[in-house]
Amino acid sequence: MRGFYGDAITRGTGRDTGRGTGMILGWDVGGVNTKAVRIDRGGDAPPPTAARAYEIQRDPSRLSSILRAVRGDLGDGRVEAHAITMTAELSQAFRTKREGVSFVLDAFADAFPATPLEVFAVGGLFVSPDRARSEPLTVAASNWYATAALVGRSVPDALLIDIGTTTTDIIPIAGGVPVAAGRTDPERLASGELVYTGALRTPAEAVARALPFRGGEASIAADGFALIGDAHLHLGRLHADEYSVATVDGRPVTREFAGERLARLICGDRDLLTDAEIDALAAALV
Amino acid sequence: MRGFYGDAITRGTGRDTGRGTGMILGWDVGGVNTKAVRIDRGGDAPPPTAARAYEIQRDPSRLSSILRAVRGDLGDGRVEAHAITMTAELSQAFRTKREGVSFVLDAFADAFPATPLEVFAVGGLFVSPDRARSEPLTVAASNWYATAALVGRSVPDALLIDIGTTTTDIIPIAGGVPVAAGRTDPERLASGELVYTGALRTPAEAVARALPFRGGEASIAADGFALIGDAHLHLGRLHADEYSVATVDGRPVTREFAGERLARLICGDRDLLTDAEIDALAAALV
Repeated sequence: MRGFYGDAITRGTGRDTGRGTGMILGWDVGGVNTKAVRIDRGGDAPPPTAARAYEIQRDPSRLSSILRAVRGDLGDGRVEAHAITMTAELSQAFRTKREGVSFVLDAFADAFPATPLEVFAVGGLFVSPDRARSEPLTVAASNWYATAALVGRSVPDALLIDIGTTTTDIIPIAGGVPVAAGRTDPERLASGELVYTGALRTPAEAVARALPFRGGEASIAADGFALIGDAHLHLGRLHADEYSVATVDGRPVTREFAGERLARLICGDRDLLTDAEIDALAAALV
Repeated sequence: MRGFYGDAITRGTGRDTGRGTGMILGWDVGGVNTKAVRIDRGGDAPPPTAARAYEIQRDPSRLSSILRAVRGDLGDGRVEAHAITMTAELSQAFRTKREGVSFVLDAFADAFPATPLEVFAVGGLFVSPDRARSEPLTVAASNWYATAALVGRSVPDALLIDIGTTTTDIIPIAGGVPVAAGRTDPERLASGELVYTGALRTPAEAVARALPFRGGEASIAADGFALIGDAHLHLGRLHADEYSVATVDGRPVTREFAGERLARLICGDRDLLTDAEIDALAAALV
């Protein structure tokens, strides 16, 4: 990770990476999770990471304080630079990616006014905040490229499949370089390199049109009643601690409540459906 | 309507319908709309109706006051009885239909403590609140039967298709009587007599897996970014006044904002997509 970020910053900005003996924080600001990694110069230990579950659309004004909290989780020391990727700009909180990119950069400037920001762009370069604001499509949702560029260093020819909570990236790598056909998210949705199916937040009705019910099939109730995470939880494949987003009904992350959410997918409830019938719904979704 | 409700009450409870000279209020308490009709004894005029948009899951505690407000909209006079159908019990606000049915009946008892309640059951009978509480599945989501029974009086042999904001009912009527294969919602989803596709509230990802984009197709972003109502609004087929639910992003019900919501379905925005490209997304959804 260290070499990757260090090299990329050098390539992108032409700045000297040997600024001092502090650390670089690498960030991924998503729509529902904010993550960071601490890269110490000369350190050999695995880099420490921190993350907070935070849905930006529920309260955008909290982003600065979330950034400070994550930074606090990564210990003391001088931060030389914040290296940023983001997907939060896609949130409904913003009317355009341009607005979202600027909002995220404003939150960093507010949280860490004295520290330089470097923004990762599709293509593998870091750019300045000013350039990121003026060309927001080059930095919007660029984290897939960062992952692919890093993997390409170890495995020069590969098909990278990265399954997240909400989406899955499928990225061809050739000669150590990502060779994706799409650059922006719409292009990547068109090329099949971005798939809106994940392991947790995907709504059940986006995956299945019908579910098994008493020997036949029942159409699914398209009303935001359950997430794919509820299916994994009910089947014992996902631990409650790993269910890092809010439930759709605001009720607890337990097998029992997940079962109630799943039952509602065919307008059922625990009076109508047995546990085995709910398990069958879950199994059909994953 | 008058005869229908009158007869059904008689059949269901054995009570004398000639209680006095007041009116009966017929209610349909849904998950996102609360509607009522006023049936005056001996009146020949079309019965007045009233409705309020109210999503029960956002604040269940308001139901009593909503009921009083709708009743107020229907003018003065003595109410002999409230005749009730409901689908609100399916809301995520309730863990089971049993809990939901009781909650709705509690709200009526709170709003109108002195007036008898009659609850419409699948099969065409009205039952007492006590029986509705003890057999909630017979009164849960029974309004489709009421519609079909009424239509059957005018058209004895028909296939009734009732397209609402969220769902569509497809109900065979033979010899003047509904002859649906399903009784409960899960059974009706299994029989194809209940379809979770409506004209307004249905999430776009429940209808389409991919949308047209620059000569090809882009997978849809399954993240609750737009409703079918946004597509109808953008195409000029739905008036803003008819968009009776909250938008997914909390922004206004205008063509411009609907276009932004639709663009986000393929992770686009107004910087990335033209108006014609957004119109193509809308046209593919409806």
